[in-house]
Amino acid sequence: MTTEPLSPTDRSTIRRGKNRAVTDRRALYSVLDAGLVCHLAFVADGAPVVLPTGYGRDGETLYLHGSTGALSLRLGAETELCVNVTLLDGVVYARSVFHFSVNYRSAVVHGKPKVLTDRDAKLHGLRVITEHLAPGSWDHARQPSKVELAKTAVLALDLGEAAVKIRDGDPVDEPEDVTTEGVWAGVLPLRRAWGAPVPAPDLASPTDVPSHVTTREKP
Amino acid sequence: MTTEPLSPTDRSTIRRGKNRAVTDRRALYSVLDAGLVCHLAFVADGAPVVLPTGYGRDGETLYLHGSTGALSLRLGAETELCVNVTLLDGVVYARSVFHFSVNYRSAVVHGKPKVLTDRDAKLHGLRVITEHLAPGSWDHARQPSKVELAKTAVLALDLGEAAVKIRDGDPVDEPEDVTTEGVWAGVLPLRRAWGAPVPAPDLASPTDVPSHVTTREKP
Repeated sequence: MTTEPLSPTDRSTIRRGKNRAVTDRRALYSVLDAGLVCHLAFVADGAPVVLPTGYGRDGETLYLHGSTGALSLRLGAETELCVNVTLLDGVVYARSVFHFSVNYRSAVVHGKPKVLTDRDAKLHGLRVITEHLAPGSWDHARQPSKVELAKTAVLALDLGEAAVKIRDGDPVDEPEDVTTEGVWAGVLPLRRAWGAPVPAPDLASPTDVPSHVTTREKP
Repeated sequence: MTTEPLSPTDRSTIRRGKNRAVTDRRALYSVLDAGLVCHLAFVADGAPVVLPTGYGRDGETLYLHGSTGALSLRLGAETELCVNVTLLDGVVYARSVFHFSVNYRSAVVHGKPKVLTDRDAKLHGLRVITEHLAPGSWDHARQPSKVELAKTAVLALDLGEAAVKIRDGDPVDEPEDVTTEGVWAGVLPLRRAWGAPVPAPDLASPTDVPSHVTTREKP
Protein backbone atom coordinates (compact mmCIF):
# COMPACT_ATOMS: atom_id res chain seq x y z
CA MET A 1 0.00 0.00 0.00
CA THR A 2 1.37 3.38 -1.01
CA THR A 3 1.73 5.76 1.87
CA GLU A 4 2.30 8.84 -0.30
CA PRO A 5 -0.16 11.57 0.58
CA LEU A 6 -2.73 12.50 -2.04
CA SER A 7 -2.49 15.50 -4.39
CA PRO A 8 1.10 15.06 -5.51
CA THR A 9 0.72 16.85 -8.87
CA ASP A 10 -0.43 20.26 -10.02
CA ARG A 11 -3.69 19.11 -11.57
CA SER A 12 -4.63 16.88 -8.68
CA THR A 13 -4.07 19.70 -6.19
CA ILE A 14 -7.39 20.99 -4.93
CA ARG A 15 -7.72 24.75 -5.44
CA ARG A 16 -11.27 25.51 -4.41
CA GLY A 17 -12.52 24.55 -0.98
CA LYS A 18 -9.10 23.48 0.26
CA ASN A 19 -10.62 22.95 3.69
CA ARG A 20 -12.52 20.04 2.11
CA ALA A 21 -9.42 18.36 0.71
CA VAL A 22 -8.43 15.11 2.37
CA THR A 23 -4.89 13.87 1.98
CA ASP A 24 -5.13 10.42 3.54
CA ARG A 25 -5.01 7.63 0.94
CA ARG A 26 -7.42 5.61 3.08
CA ALA A 27 -10.04 8.28 2.34
CA LEU A 28 -9.45 7.71 -1.38
CA TYR A 29 -9.93 3.98 -0.98
CA SER A 30 -13.00 4.50 1.19
CA VAL A 31 -14.74 6.74 -1.39
CA LEU A 32 -13.83 4.50 -4.33
CA ASP A 33 -14.99 1.40 -2.48
CA ALA A 34 -18.30 3.01 -1.45
CA GLY A 35 -19.32 4.13 -4.95
CA LEU A 36 -21.17 1.90 -7.41
CA VAL A 37 -20.47 3.52 -10.76
CA CYS A 38 -17.90 6.14 -11.72
CA HIS A 39 -17.92 8.97 -14.24
CA LEU A 40 -15.22 8.49 -16.86
CA ALA A 41 -14.03 11.53 -18.84
CA PHE A 42 -11.83 11.58 -21.93
CA VAL A 43 -11.13 13.92 -24.81
CA ALA A 44 -12.56 13.07 -28.24
CA ASP A 45 -11.85 15.39 -31.19
CA GLY A 46 -10.67 18.04 -28.76
CA ALA A 47 -13.87 18.07 -26.73
CA PRO A 48 -14.60 16.49 -23.36
CA VAL A 49 -16.89 13.49 -23.02
CA VAL A 50 -18.11 12.11 -19.69
CA LEU A 51 -20.02 8.86 -19.30
CA PRO A 52 -21.01 6.66 -16.37
CA THR A 53 -19.39 3.23 -16.19
CA GLY A 54 -18.58 0.37 -13.83
CA TYR A 55 -15.24 0.03 -12.05
CA GLY A 56 -13.48 -1.71 -9.22
CA ARG A 57 -10.39 -1.11 -7.08
CA ASP A 58 -7.63 -3.47 -6.07
CA GLY A 59 -4.85 -1.85 -4.05
CA GLU A 60 -3.42 1.04 -6.05
CA THR A 61 -5.23 0.11 -9.28
CA LEU A 62 -8.63 1.16 -10.57
CA TYR A 63 -10.06 -1.21 -13.18
CA LEU A 64 -12.46 -0.15 -15.91
CA HIS A 65 -14.00 -2.26 -18.63
CA GLY A 66 -16.14 -1.97 -21.70
CA SER A 67 -16.86 -3.39 -25.10
CA THR A 68 -13.73 -3.39 -27.26
CA GLY A 69 -15.79 -1.35 -29.71
CA ALA A 70 -16.83 1.30 -27.19
CA LEU A 71 -15.64 4.81 -27.89
CA SER A 72 -14.28 5.25 -24.41
CA LEU A 73 -12.11 2.17 -24.63
CA ARG A 74 -10.92 2.44 -28.24
CA LEU A 75 -8.92 5.41 -27.01
CA GLY A 76 -6.09 3.21 -25.81
CA ALA A 77 -3.21 3.44 -23.45
CA GLU A 78 -1.87 6.86 -24.40
CA THR A 79 -5.15 8.59 -23.69
CA GLU A 80 -5.48 10.73 -20.60
CA LEU A 81 -8.51 9.77 -18.53
CA CYS A 82 -10.17 11.37 -15.55
CA VAL A 83 -12.41 9.33 -13.29
CA ASN A 84 -14.73 10.75 -10.65
CA VAL A 85 -16.66 8.87 -7.99
CA THR A 86 -19.10 11.00 -6.00
CA LEU A 87 -21.38 10.00 -3.15
CA LEU A 88 -24.05 12.53 -2.29
CA ASP A 89 -24.89 12.48 1.42
CA GLY A 90 -27.32 15.35 1.84
CA VAL A 91 -28.53 18.80 0.87
CA VAL A 92 -27.33 21.68 3.03
CA TYR A 93 -29.98 24.37 3.55
CA ALA A 94 -28.44 27.69 4.63
CA ARG A 95 -29.87 31.09 5.64
CA SER A 96 -28.63 32.57 2.37
CA VAL A 97 -28.89 30.94 -1.05
CA PHE A 98 -25.18 31.76 -1.53
CA HIS A 99 -24.30 29.20 1.14
CA PHE A 100 -26.54 26.35 0.01
CA SER A 101 -24.41 23.29 -0.52
CA VAL A 102 -24.32 19.52 -0.49
CA ASN A 103 -22.63 17.06 1.80
CA TYR A 104 -20.61 14.68 -0.35
CA ARG A 105 -17.57 12.49 -0.73
CA SER A 106 -15.79 12.82 -4.06
CA ALA A 107 -12.65 11.22 -5.49
CA VAL A 108 -10.91 12.24 -8.73
CA VAL A 109 -8.25 10.13 -10.43
CA HIS A 110 -6.10 11.31 -13.37
CA GLY A 111 -3.89 9.18 -15.57
CA LYS A 112 -3.20 7.14 -18.67
CA PRO A 113 -4.53 3.60 -18.38
CA LYS A 114 -2.81 0.35 -19.20
CA VAL A 115 -4.84 -1.73 -21.64
CA LEU A 116 -4.63 -5.28 -20.34
CA THR A 117 -3.94 -8.00 -22.88
CA ASP A 118 -2.77 -10.91 -20.73
CA ARG A 119 -5.65 -13.34 -20.12
CA ASP A 120 -5.02 -13.73 -16.39
CA ALA A 121 -4.62 -9.99 -15.89
CA LYS A 122 -7.89 -9.33 -17.75
CA LEU A 123 -9.71 -11.97 -15.73
CA HIS A 124 -8.35 -10.49 -12.52
CA GLY A 125 -9.56 -7.01 -13.54
CA LEU A 126 -13.00 -8.33 -14.44
CA ARG A 127 -13.21 -10.19 -11.14
CA VAL A 128 -12.42 -6.96 -9.28
CA ILE A 129 -15.05 -5.03 -11.27
CA THR A 130 -17.68 -7.76 -10.84
CA GLU A 131 -17.03 -8.14 -7.11
CA HIS A 132 -17.26 -4.35 -6.73
CA LEU A 133 -20.63 -4.14 -8.50
CA ALA A 134 -22.05 -7.36 -7.06
CA PRO A 135 -19.98 -8.92 -4.28
CA GLY A 136 -20.05 -12.71 -4.29
CA SER A 137 -21.07 -12.95 -7.94
CA TRP A 138 -17.79 -13.98 -9.59
CA ASP A 139 -17.98 -17.48 -8.12
CA HIS A 140 -21.79 -17.73 -8.36
CA ALA A 141 -22.27 -16.81 -12.02
CA ARG A 142 -20.64 -18.27 -15.14
CA GLN A 143 -17.21 -16.74 -15.71
CA PRO A 144 -16.25 -15.23 -19.09
CA SER A 145 -15.79 -17.50 -22.09
CA LYS A 146 -12.86 -16.99 -24.47
CA VAL A 147 -15.13 -15.12 -26.89
CA GLU A 148 -16.61 -12.92 -24.15
CA LEU A 149 -13.12 -12.13 -22.89
CA ALA A 150 -12.04 -11.12 -26.40
CA LYS A 151 -15.04 -8.78 -26.66
CA THR A 152 -14.15 -7.07 -23.39
CA ALA A 153 -11.49 -4.37 -23.02
CA VAL A 154 -10.07 -4.04 -19.51
CA LEU A 155 -8.16 -0.93 -18.45
CA ALA A 156 -5.98 -0.51 -15.37
CA LEU A 157 -5.52 3.03 -14.04
CA ASP A 158 -2.91 3.72 -11.38
CA LEU A 159 -4.22 5.63 -8.34
CA GLY A 160 -1.01 7.63 -7.95
CA GLU A 161 -2.55 10.90 -9.10
CA ALA A 162 -5.75 11.43 -7.18
CA ALA A 163 -7.62 13.85 -4.95
CA VAL A 164 -10.44 13.55 -2.43
CA LYS A 165 -12.90 16.17 -1.23
CA ILE A 166 -15.41 15.62 1.53
CA ARG A 167 -18.04 17.97 2.93
CA ASP A 168 -19.91 16.92 6.01
CA GLY A 169 -21.96 18.60 8.70
CA ASP A 170 -23.90 21.79 9.23
CA PRO A 171 -24.49 24.84 7.05
CA VAL A 172 -21.94 27.62 7.32
CA ASP A 173 -23.61 31.03 7.16
CA GLU A 174 -22.53 34.64 7.39
CA PRO A 175 -22.52 35.91 10.99
CA GLU A 176 -25.15 38.53 10.16
CA ASP A 177 -27.51 35.82 8.84
CA VAL A 178 -27.18 33.45 11.78
CA THR A 179 -29.17 35.81 14.00
CA THR A 180 -32.10 35.95 11.54
CA GLU A 181 -35.29 34.58 13.09
CA GLY A 182 -37.67 32.32 11.21
CA VAL A 183 -35.30 31.09 8.51
CA TRP A 184 -34.66 27.38 8.83
CA ALA A 185 -31.20 26.03 8.15
CA GLY A 186 -29.93 22.49 8.41
CA VAL A 187 -29.16 19.33 6.50
CA LEU A 188 -31.57 17.03 4.68
CA PRO A 189 -29.71 13.71 4.59
CA LEU A 190 -29.89 11.55 1.48
CA ARG A 191 -30.11 7.84 2.21
CA ARG A 192 -29.51 4.91 -0.13
CA ALA A 193 -30.85 1.43 0.46
CA TRP A 194 -31.35 -1.80 -1.45
CA GLY A 195 -34.93 -2.67 -2.31
CA ALA A 196 -36.26 -6.23 -2.25
CA PRO A 197 -34.51 -8.40 -4.89
CA VAL A 198 -36.63 -8.97 -8.01
CA PRO A 199 -35.96 -12.46 -9.45
CA ALA A 200 -35.69 -12.78 -13.23
CA PRO A 201 -39.05 -14.05 -14.56
CA ASP A 202 -37.29 -16.79 -16.57
CA LEU A 203 -35.34 -18.55 -13.80
CA ALA A 204 -35.02 -22.23 -14.80
CA SER A 205 -36.62 -23.27 -11.50
CA PRO A 206 -37.56 -21.52 -8.26
CA THR A 207 -34.21 -20.42 -6.80
CA ASP A 208 -33.65 -18.90 -3.37
CA VAL A 209 -32.08 -15.48 -3.48
CA PRO A 210 -28.47 -16.30 -2.50
CA SER A 211 -26.96 -14.89 0.68
CA HIS A 212 -24.47 -12.71 -1.20
CA VAL A 213 -27.52 -10.78 -2.44
CA THR A 214 -29.74 -10.90 0.67
CA THR A 215 -26.95 -9.90 3.04
CA ARG A 216 -25.30 -7.37 0.75
CA GLU A 217 -23.84 -4.47 2.70
CA LYS A 218 -25.97 -1.34 2.44
CA PRO A 219 -25.08 0.97 -0.45
CA MET B 1 -40.29 23.68 -26.14
CA THR B 2 -38.08 22.18 -28.82
CA THR B 3 -39.63 19.17 -30.49
CA GLU B 4 -36.44 18.12 -32.28
CA PRO B 5 -35.58 14.53 -31.45
CA LEU B 6 -32.43 13.95 -29.44
CA SER B 7 -29.05 12.88 -30.88
CA PRO B 8 -28.86 15.36 -33.75
CA THR B 9 -25.04 15.44 -34.01
CA ASP B 10 -22.32 12.89 -34.52
CA ARG B 11 -20.92 13.03 -31.00
CA SER B 12 -24.32 12.94 -29.33
CA THR B 13 -25.31 9.86 -31.34
CA ILE B 14 -25.28 6.80 -29.14
CA ARG B 15 -23.09 4.05 -30.58
CA ARG B 16 -23.06 1.37 -27.92
CA GLY B 17 -26.30 -0.07 -26.62
CA LYS B 18 -28.44 1.69 -29.22
CA ASN B 19 -31.43 -0.21 -27.87
CA ARG B 20 -31.02 1.90 -24.71
CA ALA B 21 -31.07 5.22 -26.53
CA VAL B 22 -34.15 7.35 -25.97
CA THR B 23 -34.96 10.05 -28.48
CA ASP B 24 -37.83 11.82 -26.76
CA ARG B 25 -36.85 15.22 -25.36
CA ARG B 26 -39.22 14.67 -22.45
CA ALA B 27 -36.93 11.81 -21.34
CA LEU B 28 -34.02 14.28 -21.32
CA TYR B 29 -35.98 16.71 -19.16
CA SER B 30 -37.12 13.91 -16.87
CA VAL B 31 -33.56 12.65 -16.21
CA LEU B 32 -32.13 16.16 -15.73
CA ASP B 33 -34.96 17.11 -13.39
CA ALA B 34 -34.58 13.93 -11.32
CA GLY B 35 -30.85 14.27 -10.70
CA LEU B 36 -29.37 16.28 -7.84
CA VAL B 37 -25.81 16.97 -8.96
CA CYS B 38 -24.23 16.58 -12.38
CA HIS B 39 -20.75 15.63 -13.52
CA LEU B 40 -19.13 18.45 -15.48
CA ALA B 41 -16.23 17.62 -17.81
CA PHE B 42 -13.87 20.04 -19.54
CA VAL B 43 -10.39 19.93 -21.06
CA ALA B 44 -7.53 21.56 -19.15
CA ASP B 45 -4.01 21.50 -20.65
CA GLY B 46 -5.16 18.89 -23.12
CA ALA B 47 -6.39 16.46 -20.47
CA PRO B 48 -9.93 15.75 -19.33
CA VAL B 49 -11.20 16.83 -15.92
CA VAL B 50 -14.53 15.76 -14.44
CA LEU B 51 -16.00 17.18 -11.25
CA PRO B 52 -19.40 17.01 -9.56
CA THR B 53 -21.37 20.24 -9.37
CA GLY B 54 -24.86 21.66 -8.90
CA TYR B 55 -27.13 22.57 -11.79
CA GLY B 56 -30.70 23.33 -12.74
CA ARG B 57 -32.82 23.24 -15.90
CA ASP B 58 -35.25 25.80 -17.28
CA GLY B 59 -36.76 24.85 -20.63
CA GLU B 60 -33.94 24.24 -23.10
CA THR B 61 -31.23 25.68 -20.84
CA LEU B 62 -29.05 23.97 -18.26
CA TYR B 63 -27.59 26.36 -15.69
CA LEU B 64 -24.30 25.78 -13.89
CA HIS B 65 -22.60 27.98 -11.34
CA GLY B 66 -19.42 28.26 -9.37
CA SER B 67 -16.96 30.61 -7.81
CA THR B 68 -15.58 33.04 -10.39
CA GLY B 69 -12.17 31.72 -9.37
CA ALA B 70 -13.00 28.06 -9.89
CA LEU B 71 -11.02 26.26 -12.53
CA SER B 72 -14.11 24.89 -14.19
CA LEU B 73 -15.65 28.29 -14.65
CA ARG B 74 -12.56 30.31 -15.54
CA LEU B 75 -12.65 28.39 -18.80
CA GLY B 76 -15.16 30.77 -20.32
CA ALA B 77 -17.63 30.77 -23.13
CA GLU B 78 -15.49 29.23 -25.86
CA THR B 79 -14.79 26.12 -23.85
CA GLU B 80 -16.48 22.89 -24.81
CA LEU B 81 -18.21 21.28 -21.86
CA CYS B 82 -19.84 17.92 -21.36
CA VAL B 83 -22.35 17.38 -18.60
CA ASN B 84 -23.64 14.02 -17.43
CA VAL B 85 -26.50 13.31 -15.04
CA THR B 86 -26.87 9.66 -14.05
CA LEU B 87 -29.44 8.05 -11.79
CA LEU B 88 -28.61 4.52 -10.71
CA ASP B 89 -31.75 2.43 -10.22
CA GLY B 90 -30.42 -1.04 -9.47
CA VAL B 91 -27.82 -3.74 -9.98
CA VAL B 92 -28.64 -6.41 -12.56
CA TYR B 93 -27.43 -9.88 -11.56
CA ALA B 94 -27.15 -12.22 -14.55
CA ARG B 95 -26.28 -15.92 -14.98
CA SER B 96 -22.95 -14.94 -16.54
CA VAL B 97 -20.64 -12.20 -15.29
CA PHE B 98 -20.47 -10.93 -18.89
CA HIS B 99 -24.11 -9.85 -18.64
CA PHE B 100 -24.01 -8.18 -15.24
CA SER B 101 -25.28 -4.63 -15.63
CA VAL B 102 -27.01 -1.76 -13.92
CA ASN B 103 -30.40 -0.20 -14.40
CA TYR B 104 -29.92 3.51 -14.89
CA ARG B 105 -31.08 6.73 -16.50
CA SER B 106 -28.31 8.84 -17.99
CA ALA B 107 -28.31 12.15 -19.87
CA VAL B 108 -25.30 13.69 -21.63
CA VAL B 109 -25.20 17.29 -22.85
CA HIS B 110 -22.45 18.75 -25.07
CA GLY B 111 -21.85 22.39 -25.85
CA LYS B 112 -20.17 25.71 -25.26
CA PRO B 113 -21.79 27.66 -22.43
CA LYS B 114 -22.82 31.29 -22.34
CA VAL B 115 -21.26 33.11 -19.40
CA LEU B 116 -24.05 35.28 -18.00
CA THR B 117 -23.15 38.85 -17.14
CA ASP B 118 -26.55 40.55 -16.94
CA ARG B 119 -27.70 40.83 -13.32
CA ASP B 120 -31.25 39.63 -13.95
CA ALA B 121 -30.06 36.74 -16.12
CA LYS B 122 -27.58 35.65 -13.42
CA LEU B 123 -30.25 35.89 -10.72
CA HIS B 124 -32.62 33.84 -12.85
CA GLY B 125 -29.95 31.15 -13.36
CA LEU B 126 -29.17 31.04 -9.65
CA ARG B 127 -32.87 30.79 -8.81
CA VAL B 128 -33.18 27.82 -11.19
CA ILE B 129 -30.12 26.12 -9.65
CA THR B 130 -31.29 26.80 -6.07
CA GLU B 131 -34.84 25.62 -6.74
CA HIS B 132 -33.43 22.46 -8.34
CA LEU B 133 -31.22 21.64 -5.37
CA ALA B 134 -33.68 22.74 -2.71
CA PRO B 135 -37.18 23.54 -4.01
CA GLY B 136 -38.87 26.39 -2.15
CA SER B 137 -35.60 27.83 -0.86
CA TRP B 138 -35.16 30.86 -3.12
CA ASP B 139 -37.99 32.73 -1.41
CA HIS B 140 -37.25 31.31 2.07
CA ALA B 141 -33.54 32.15 2.32
CA ARG B 142 -31.75 35.46 1.81
CA GLN B 143 -31.14 36.12 -1.87
CA PRO B 144 -27.65 37.00 -3.19
CA SER B 145 -26.11 40.35 -2.31
CA LYS B 146 -24.30 42.41 -4.94
CA VAL B 147 -20.96 41.12 -3.64
CA GLU B 148 -22.11 37.49 -3.60
CA LEU B 149 -23.45 37.86 -7.12
CA ALA B 150 -20.09 39.23 -8.29
CA LYS B 151 -18.31 36.25 -6.74
CA THR B 152 -20.56 33.80 -8.58
CA ALA B 153 -20.13 32.77 -12.21
CA VAL B 154 -23.30 31.50 -13.87
CA LEU B 155 -23.15 29.51 -17.10
CA ALA B 156 -26.03 28.70 -19.44
CA LEU B 157 -25.69 25.59 -21.62
CA ASP B 158 -28.15 24.98 -24.43
CA LEU B 159 -29.73 21.50 -24.41
CA GLY B 160 -29.72 21.23 -28.21
CA GLU B 161 -26.98 18.62 -28.31
CA ALA B 162 -27.89 15.87 -25.90
CA ALA B 163 -28.44 12.14 -25.57
CA VAL B 164 -30.31 9.93 -23.13
CA LYS B 165 -29.78 6.26 -22.30
CA ILE B 166 -32.03 4.25 -20.05
CA ARG B 167 -31.76 0.62 -18.94
CA ASP B 168 -34.63 -0.88 -17.04
CA GLY B 169 -35.90 -4.34 -16.24
CA ASP B 170 -34.61 -7.87 -16.08
CA PRO B 171 -31.22 -9.42 -16.84
CA VAL B 172 -30.64 -10.51 -20.44
CA ASP B 173 -28.69 -13.78 -20.56
CA GLU B 174 -27.45 -16.13 -23.25
CA PRO B 175 -30.06 -18.78 -24.12
CA GLU B 176 -27.70 -21.58 -23.00
CA ASP B 177 -27.36 -19.96 -19.56
CA VAL B 178 -31.07 -19.39 -18.92
CA THR B 179 -31.63 -23.12 -18.47
CA THR B 180 -28.91 -23.40 -15.78
CA GLU B 181 -30.36 -24.50 -12.45
CA GLY B 182 -29.32 -23.01 -9.15
CA VAL B 183 -27.89 -19.72 -10.44
CA TRP B 184 -29.95 -16.77 -9.28
CA ALA B 185 -30.53 -13.86 -11.62
CA GLY B 186 -32.56 -10.73 -11.05
CA VAL B 187 -32.43 -7.09 -10.09
CA LEU B 188 -31.45 -5.57 -6.75
CA PRO B 189 -33.18 -2.17 -6.81
CA LEU B 190 -31.38 0.86 -5.41
CA ARG B 191 -33.66 3.22 -3.50
CA ARG B 192 -33.02 6.81 -2.47
CA ALA B 193 -34.87 8.57 0.31
CA TRP B 194 -34.56 11.69 2.42
CA GLY B 195 -33.59 11.17 6.03
CA ALA B 196 -35.01 13.24 8.89
CA PRO B 197 -33.97 16.92 8.57
CA VAL B 198 -31.13 17.87 10.94
CA PRO B 199 -31.54 21.50 12.10
CA ALA B 200 -28.43 23.66 12.29
CA PRO B 201 -27.27 23.76 15.94
CA ASP B 202 -27.05 27.57 15.84
CA LEU B 203 -30.59 28.46 14.76
CA ALA B 204 -31.43 31.87 16.29
CA SER B 205 -34.51 30.38 17.93
CA PRO B 206 -36.42 27.10 17.70
CA THR B 207 -37.75 27.06 14.13
CA ASP B 208 -40.16 24.53 12.67
CA VAL B 209 -38.80 22.69 9.67
CA PRO B 210 -40.63 24.46 6.82
CA SER B 211 -43.05 22.57 4.59
CA HIS B 212 -40.84 22.93 1.51
CA VAL B 213 -38.38 20.70 3.38
CA THR B 214 -40.78 18.32 5.16
CA THR B 215 -42.89 17.69 2.05
CA ARG B 216 -40.01 17.59 -0.41
CA GLU B 217 -40.65 15.13 -3.21
CA LYS B 218 -38.66 11.93 -2.81
CA PRO B 219 -35.25 11.94 -4.48
